Amino acid sequence: MAISHLHCLQSVRVSFPCRPSVSNNYYHGRDNFTRKSSSLVYASTNNLDRDLHLQSKVETVLDSVKWDNRGLAVAIAQNVDTGAILMQGFANREAVATTVSSRKATFYSRSRSMLWTKGETSNNFINVHDIFLDCDRDSIIYLGKPDGPTCHTGSETCYYTPVFDLLENQQDKEDKLALTTLYSLESTIAQRKGELEVPESGKPSWTRRLLLDEKLLCSKIREEADELCRTLEDNEDKPRAASEMADVLYHAMVLLALKDVKMEEVLDILRRRFSQSGIEEKRSRNSQA
Amino acid sequence: MAISHLHCLQSVRVSFPCRPSVSNNYYHGRDNFTRKSSSLVYASTNNLDRDLHLQSKVETVLDSVKWDNRGLAVAIAQNVDTGAILMQGFANREAVATTVSSRKATFYSRSRSMLWTKGETSNNFINVHDIFLDCDRDSIIYLGKPDGPTCHTGSETCYYTPVFDLLENQQDKEDKLALTTLYSLESTIAQRKGELEVPESGKPSWTRRLLLDEKLLCSKIREEADELCRTLEDNEDKPRAASEMADVLYHAMVLLALKDVKMEEVLDILRRRFSQSGIEEKRSRNSQA
Repeated sequence: MAISHLHCLQSVRVSFPCRPSVSNNYYHGRDNFTRKSSSLVYASTNNLDRDLHLQSKVETVLDSVKWDNRGLAVAIAQNVDTGAILMQGFANREAVATTVSSRKATFYSRSRSMLWTKGETSNNFINVHDIFLDCDRDSIIYLGKPDGPTCHTGSETCYYTPVFDLLENQQDKEDKLALTTLYSLESTIAQRKGELEVPESGKPSWTRRLLLDEKLLCSKIREEADELCRTLEDNEDKPRAASEMADVLYHAMVLLALKDVKMEEVLDILRRRFSQSGIEEKRSRNSQA
Repeated sequence: MAISHLHCLQSVRVSFPCRPSVSNNYYHGRDNFTRKSSSLVYASTNNLDRDLHLQSKVETVLDSVKWDNRGLAVAIAQNVDTGAILMQGFANREAVATTVSSRKATFYSRSRSMLWTKGETSNNFINVHDIFLDCDRDSIIYLGKPDGPTCHTGSETCYYTPVFDLLENQQDKEDKLALTTLYSLESTIAQRKGELEVPESGKPSWTRRLLLDEKLLCSKIREEADELCRTLEDNEDKPRAASEMADVLYHAMVLLALKDVKMEEVLDILRRRFSQSGIEEKRSRNSQA
């Protein structure tokens, strides 16, 4: 995972002036910024050169964004590990520049007419690992890791109102997050685990049986892993390999549910391992091998 | 995964009039719609009642959306299996109503001042499985499965311009999609596979060794699956279970790379299995057990 670490941008942030005017107006220009930053005292000429160079690059990127007539672009915060869309807001030049330098997802509040960094009140910051622009350059993804629930309601994400449930009169049910396949499956398994105390009429579901019988579960995980390997060893076809992998994943996720481990924790581990440089990754893997 | 199937909404779509005025104006009102739909002839009174009831519900949901002063809300299309943000556009009442009835992600084009369904030209529709509103009711997720690349450039998604790479002068490199952890890892493994023909100086990476040695790879998959099971059998702690699952996932994904199988295919299988009703799921799992 190529995650850049431009720590020197921290100094650029210092040079971004907190203009009082920003609280009442969208910020378009950059003359003021250029003038103000040039008056800053830096520890060395080299640092100054580097920061000015970087600042110029940030300005070039910001110039390439197609801001709307209010000076805004759509900004979507996405969980780097799970892919969950955490929230959507709007960003102006300063919001993006601040996000670049602080690595905290920052937006422009249209209702309060001011910059705001998600988490400045709740401490649930979204730590931005990368920023992406779309093909039209008018939409931005802040790809990051949230410190806690993103929604002001305490919900993990702001998207917990499913339209088809509303149409089916299920609005009284608990909030249902917009979950993609892996997390829907995780949620289903967690639900089955939560129902273990409730006696089931009829034949129990397979998930319930696995949750209740650790020996069965472990024998299935070993068996499915073996079957996955055999798709390679016996040169079986692609659909078979995909199906066996689905079996491995599902059964392993039942075990994770029993251990109270979330897939997000697993992905967090994988990201940390693979966001190291190639050399470091090689060393750490070799030491494991 | 609770994916609703309101097929009867198809008939509602028929009752949505294709107003010529929509091509030049944002659509706010619904009087015209109500008048027009009341003149339609239905096969039976029951169907009519059901459709009118459903239509009324759709209108209620649409009334709850906080449309901006242009009658629009942000609409984000997300891949239900991978979580990838495919594109972002804007939707008006009619775009959401059309998406509800047709199950194809539909937007309002601000530049062309008209409704457009993603895929109407390219045939790369986004088949919508669920729709979510955010806490403020001014942002919408179309959670769906794309028929092909979403971006007009042929890219899988519209988000392939990484800001930190631009700042590091890497804009000449190939497009880099906004990938979350699982797909970054998949991409890294695919890259290692693509480099197998290139002689490596120094000690090969662990991934390269696994890709070159199927026997080693399969022995590692079986070993890691066994170690995952032992975290349950030996009551090891949560971090250990998460770490072992990370090992299982990584090694299994190296095998998938050798078999040219994408994680998206695996998740597609899991979604199809688990989007069946509980009873069906139970039956199909029991027949496997």
